[in-house]
Amino acid sequence: MRPRLPRPGGVYIDMATPALAEIMDAAEVEKLYYTPVDVYSPVAPNPDAITRAAQIIAAAKKPAILLGKGAAQAQADDLVKELSETYKLPYLAMSMAKGLLPDNGPLSALSCRSTIMEQADVVIVIGARINWMLSFGRGKWNPDVKFVQLDVEPKEIDRNVPVAAPVVGDMNLALKALLAELPKYKMNIDPTWVPALQAEAKEKNAKFTARLQAAASASPMNHWTALSAIKPVMEANPDVILINEGANTLDDTRDTIDMVLPRHRVDCASWSIMGMGIGSTIGAAVATGKSVVAIEGDSAFGFSGMDFATICRYKLPCTVVIFNNGGIYNGIGVDPSGKNAPAPTTLDINARYDKLGDAFGATTYYVTTPDELSKALTEAIASKQPCLIDVQLAADSGKESGHIGYLNPAPLIDYTV
Amino acid sequence: MRPRLPRPGGVYIDMATPALAEIMDAAEVEKLYYTPVDVYSPVAPNPDAITRAAQIIAAAKKPAILLGKGAAQAQADDLVKELSETYKLPYLAMSMAKGLLPDNGPLSALSCRSTIMEQADVVIVIGARINWMLSFGRGKWNPDVKFVQLDVEPKEIDRNVPVAAPVVGDMNLALKALLAELPKYKMNIDPTWVPALQAEAKEKNAKFTARLQAAASASPMNHWTALSAIKPVMEANPDVILINEGANTLDDTRDTIDMVLPRHRVDCASWSIMGMGIGSTIGAAVATGKSVVAIEGDSAFGFSGMDFATICRYKLPCTVVIFNNGGIYNGIGVDPSGKNAPAPTTLDINARYDKLGDAFGATTYYVTTPDELSKALTEAIASKQPCLIDVQLAADSGKESGHIGYLNPAPLIDYTV
Amino acid sequence: MRPRLPRPGGVYIDMATPALAEIMDAAEVEKLYYTPVDVYSPVAPNPDAITRAAQIIAAAKKPAILLGKGAAQAQADDLVKELSETYKLPYLAMSMAKGLLPDNGPLSALSCRSTIMEQADVVIVIGARINWMLSFGRGKWNPDVKFVQLDVEPKEIDRNVPVAAPVVGDMNLALKALLAELPKYKMNIDPTWVPALQAEAKEKNAKFTARLQAAASASPMNHWTALSAIKPVMEANPDVILINEGANTLDDTRDTIDMVLPRHRVDCASWSIMGMGIGSTIGAAVATGKSVVAIEGDSAFGFSGMDFATICRYKLPCTVVIFNNGGIYNGIGVDPSGKNAPAPTTLDINARYDKLGDAFGATTYYVTTPDELSKALTEAIASKQPCLIDVQLAADSGKESGHIGYLNPAPLIDYTV
Amino acid sequence: MRPRLPRPGGVYIDMATPALAEIMDAAEVEKLYYTPVDVYSPVAPNPDAITRAAQIIAAAKKPAILLGKGAAQAQADDLVKELSETYKLPYLAMSMAKGLLPDNGPLSALSCRSTIMEQADVVIVIGARINWMLSFGRGKWNPDVKFVQLDVEPKEIDRNVPVAAPVVGDMNLALKALLAELPKYKMNIDPTWVPALQAEAKEKNAKFTARLQAAASASPMNHWTALSAIKPVMEANPDVILINEGANTLDDTRDTIDMVLPRHRVDCASWSIMGMGIGSTIGAAVATGKSVVAIEGDSAFGFSGMDFATICRYKLPCTVVIFNNGGIYNGIGVDPSGKNAPAPTTLDINARYDKLGDAFGATTYYVTTPDELSKALTEAIASKQPCLIDVQLAADSGKESGHIGYLNPAPLIDYTV
Repeated sequence: MRPRLPRPGGVYIDMATPALAEIMDAAEVEKLYYTPVDVYSPVAPNPDAITRAAQIIAAAKKPAILLGKGAAQAQADDLVKELSETYKLPYLAMSMAKGLLPDNGPLSALSCRSTIMEQADVVIVIGARINWMLSFGRGKWNPDVKFVQLDVEPKEIDRNVPVAAPVVGDMNLALKALLAELPKYKMNIDPTWVPALQAEAKEKNAKFTARLQAAASASPMNHWTALSAIKPVMEANPDVILINEGANTLDDTRDTIDMVLPRHRVDCASWSIMGMGIGSTIGAAVATGKSVVAIEGDSAFGFSGMDFATICRYKLPCTVVIFNNGGIYNGIGVDPSGKNAPAPTTLDINARYDKLGDAFGATTYYVTTPDELSKALTEAIASKQPCLIDVQLAADSGKESGHIGYLNPAPLIDYTV
Repeated sequence: MRPRLPRPGGVYIDMATPALAEIMDAAEVEKLYYTPVDVYSPVAPNPDAITRAAQIIAAAKKPAILLGKGAAQAQADDLVKELSETYKLPYLAMSMAKGLLPDNGPLSALSCRSTIMEQADVVIVIGARINWMLSFGRGKWNPDVKFVQLDVEPKEIDRNVPVAAPVVGDMNLALKALLAELPKYKMNIDPTWVPALQAEAKEKNAKFTARLQAAASASPMNHWTALSAIKPVMEANPDVILINEGANTLDDTRDTIDMVLPRHRVDCASWSIMGMGIGSTIGAAVATGKSVVAIEGDSAFGFSGMDFATICRYKLPCTVVIFNNGGIYNGIGVDPSGKNAPAPTTLDINARYDKLGDAFGATTYYVTTPDELSKALTEAIASKQPCLIDVQLAADSGKESGHIGYLNPAPLIDYTV
Repeated sequence: MRPRLPRPGGVYIDMATPALAEIMDAAEVEKLYYTPVDVYSPVAPNPDAITRAAQIIAAAKKPAILLGKGAAQAQADDLVKELSETYKLPYLAMSMAKGLLPDNGPLSALSCRSTIMEQADVVIVIGARINWMLSFGRGKWNPDVKFVQLDVEPKEIDRNVPVAAPVVGDMNLALKALLAELPKYKMNIDPTWVPALQAEAKEKNAKFTARLQAAASASPMNHWTALSAIKPVMEANPDVILINEGANTLDDTRDTIDMVLPRHRVDCASWSIMGMGIGSTIGAAVATGKSVVAIEGDSAFGFSGMDFATICRYKLPCTVVIFNNGGIYNGIGVDPSGKNAPAPTTLDINARYDKLGDAFGATTYYVTTPDELSKALTEAIASKQPCLIDVQLAADSGKESGHIGYLNPAPLIDYTV
Repeated sequence: MRPRLPRPGGVYIDMATPALAEIMDAAEVEKLYYTPVDVYSPVAPNPDAITRAAQIIAAAKKPAILLGKGAAQAQADDLVKELSETYKLPYLAMSMAKGLLPDNGPLSALSCRSTIMEQADVVIVIGARINWMLSFGRGKWNPDVKFVQLDVEPKEIDRNVPVAAPVVGDMNLALKALLAELPKYKMNIDPTWVPALQAEAKEKNAKFTARLQAAASASPMNHWTALSAIKPVMEANPDVILINEGANTLDDTRDTIDMVLPRHRVDCASWSIMGMGIGSTIGAAVATGKSVVAIEGDSAFGFSGMDFATICRYKLPCTVVIFNNGGIYNGIGVDPSGKNAPAPTTLDINARYDKLGDAFGATTYYVTTPDELSKALTEAIASKQPCLIDVQLAADSGKESGHIGYLNPAPLIDYTV
């Protein structure tokens, strides 16, 4: 359906105006609107930019693809896949690009992020911002890395770091042009590059699996215990959309739950804020008709938890899973004032979020073991009804996170004369 | 305690700076701050402005005082009282000024608002904005009314209507100067003015009491049933601070619950928004140490209800009373789309907000009769602990309110040429 | 030469910083800068947009090209020429696009502007804004006209009127794509369209020539007298850049002086302001090394006339011609206050701007006849030195202009209640 | 005459609306406006602030008054005089406050600015900003100085330096209150303070006079030569308003020409810009009806010299004196590019600004000796007609000025990680 917009230069309709139907007939109302020919007019990149990009890629010894949410939004899924598979280019996805290419595919370098930052000589950035989430392209990155950046927004080019091959334009047109250009060149990938990454990934994934297994028997549960129960349920339901919000809950869930379908993960991305979870859950369910699972830290849920009432009112197929460890980061903060008050970061380890679900008529669960959690989540997804699962964790599960203060400027300037 | 501020022209301390204690000793840190001599320097009004105001007041046949929250904030309680009592000036309070002079005092004209707007020839506006809450001083007002406006903010003068006697300055200094000037003049109040208002107030108050009594036996309860139970409890606890938010819940509570102490009522005033209730409840309790009762519409509570967890965590002496009629205005809205979905204004008449209180360990009540409500509120206030009362009303209690669209501009301009 | 920019994320160099050379060596300074790969990365339009545009053009009975300064700036001169000549499309140039295609060419419809607005069914807008200079595409325009708009800036599309075929992208790439697409379609131009325009142009041009000739003998001179003298001199010097500013001086000069080379005319365009003349004169001379003639109204010259000193100081090959009729519009305004003061729009008909030129050492002329003017301007251009010509007009030459008030909104709204 | 303003909440009159007279009768038009009761409602300072100020002043050993243009604008001339004379308080005037108290009075400490900054223990700042013109109250100032600041604007208090005794309110009311309070206290002025300042002033003034005399015979003239000729003429015409603008021209004229009447000097003050001269000249003449002399640097005149035409058109009694040394600071700058072009700071030492005056019919003078200048200026003032004097100085008169870069922040921060 194409939008109908107020006609430029036409009549200004104030909100206090009586309903149009009362003062003019349908044909007159129609004249106040128009349907634009093109809401989004894709533009193709400069052929010179494509040539430059192709030459740099072809010359790379250790290339990699870095996928951002812009790549996912562009729905250029097949073209991205063709680029990676044709040239055996390993890839790394930013959190909301996960699943555009499968997290568990043979070229996925998700667990080799540090290696790619330190060793890659050419990185093809597709629809990602080279912002603080990527250390601004500096710091840990190979100082000689060349960025080939495909983006629809010219302002992203050279924003934080000089870009060797900017490609500005519609993502589909850009990828098509690049795929048409690359066959003209001989690739020079170091034959040891991909195998080394694959070996590293295999080793890291094994370690991660062992870590999950070790946590699986903890009582009370910690974050990893809960995720060891959730992971197989989500893998069994790949088309469920995952919403994710919190501190440890965000970081650990992103690292644990592989995505295999594009546009199936929504989190705060680079610039959103705490509280985006429940609204995103509602939106995802309404927009797609699919089932949604939101995995929320308890503090994160506190920002917009009342909106769970909306999920219930409209009987949406949404399950909200709350990782309840009684606080921000964890529930063992100490009051710095010495007044025996709760620490500013401490919530209530005994809060029973399932009762909040009861208040609005949801099916609710209070779970204390991985088996209970696995069973509850399986049932909840299957029910396609509003559900809320309070996952009781240990108060000491989780640690302070987000230390990226070194990216901030730190002036200490004496203006006195 | 006086504030300590960063020294002007001094050192700029970035948030990323290491804790000051780590890089400088206490005496050095101290130099970065200063304590201002005067945070608020009251200014006195121009003597000419006082003379002008006094002359207009003295010439009035039908004068009245209109109190705004600025009058309450100025804490000029005794001076306001002296002005009203010395000259027998009837008064009207805007919602957050209620209690500055007692709502039930002999000169209170709270129930004669229309008469004052239509008949008063001089209105002494003390710390109130003549904004949309007062029809911008136009519309229903006597077209020849003269406003004497005392305000600390010069920009309020003539903002929406010309002011005959502006008095700009600190409220205490202004009232003192006015009280010192008025004895120089002979007053000319029409001797029938105050008695007529008092007769009207008596009649209106009797009608209101009868209305409350009639509603007291309704089952299920409606707004007036609930308020007939709440009113005597609040009168028995005059020092409890009342927070109030909603549509019908706001209007009806303001009309029913008299205030007898200044600064004991907090609502959205002229410019605040839905959601101000629970934060204000927490703030009032922490700032004053007094008990607080919040009377909330169910929709209003939905904006910030999660913050009830904070009340519980800090064990604040706050009782939240929710008027649960299952919707905005009421719970009987009809879905205009014909899809059998809830109407956009409809919530859940079966929601059990008391369970939300249970989730965080509060003492909770679910009440369906005025006796249960009276008992629950009395107990809750006495407990000085976090309490939540879900007051079950009929779904059809309440009506659409807030029709002031006639104050908006309504252009319908054809820009076409 | 490509620009060197401060490195993103690099060092912030304050103006108060000591010269870099004093604190770091050349290699260190070099690291603070980078040279961007692409300062302007041209993007190509969507092929679908090209198809849509070509179909609409091919279907046109009475098409026309409308050239804006964006077309001139894009330096797509040959492509524009090819489009017009291949398909025999008549063209109209906005003022700063004059000369991109020759004003006096066989397809120039410069004197048929009204006919094109009223009759054209498809207008190919190349780099022009459809803003107030074009009546926002409404008013006098054929109500069924379809705009095909080529622009590098997406925000120009549908800004004031719906556009039937938007083509967003780099002008050269867009024109190339359109020229490649059009041969696929059969054109449908009404065979009488161009001949009719040519006949109209011939008739109008003859009338205009007669008007100039009639004015040529007026004494004292009026605007047309002066222009009848200037026109052949400018035609004899087609590579001289023309700067033009004023009210009547702007309108009449634009109508009289044909341009045959692109980018040789600078005026206030759609959004610039009075006072742009002398700075533009300096800029044009410095940037191109060519000779420049500025034709200025006396009031316009007053905004920035002091900058003539800069022309003299740098000995630039610039001639400033001042149409001195002693006022804004003309010099016969009457003081509305009745105090025998100059009218607000009246300057001094006896002012001798040539003496201002003398003050700074320019060669100056004070001329009162077309012969003197012709001789002075010929000499001045030939000298390649700073010259100033005060052209003495009659005080009653010129009339009030710029009546486009009907384009402004005219609300008369009563907000009272 | 009191202003008539559009009535608040009334009818919005668009500029495109037909003249009101055409659509409504006079009585209707009148209703659209109102006359405010108080345009400026003076407020009196807090009595506590007055007490605090008086106590600090009374305790001072070495007090001084610092006058700003706010003091002059408040027209509290007699009160300022009474404060200084009653308590024998030496005073210093910022440039536009010069003449509020006479520059040449016995308590004037104009030539002892450094001593006051370094030694005064209490400074009564009346209507001046403690901004960059006063080194923000830091730097050279006695670190223990206490500022007593009288200002109508609360935001000026503590803006750049903590203020020991802020007095916010109308200047007249504040000075009256202070003068009423001070007699309650015993003053403690060090008896050597004023005599020491007077001795210093006498010595400095003698040196300055000698310097002027030494310059008087220079040929060609320099700035001091010209000022030695101007000073006695201005002293003989104390009621002429002096406008002053430039670099050396501003500094040297301010230091040389004493003012003895308030509000007779207009310059760029703290925040105005180059180019303020001619507009201020026109404004001063029109607003006061008095004669005006503008002393302008040649570069400064260049910013708005065309407006001299307005002086001529309205035959205003204004004389513009241009210190023509052929450049910014001076006319001997060297082209740093080595291309034999004028230096960026160099104008034309041979420019004849008097011819610019001739262009518009003024009486003009070109003077090369102090006698010619003295005679020309005397004649010009006496004529009460538009006059322009080009004062030919040596190209090497004047030096670079304005070095206050040490007040700017000087960060050199490496944001790289």
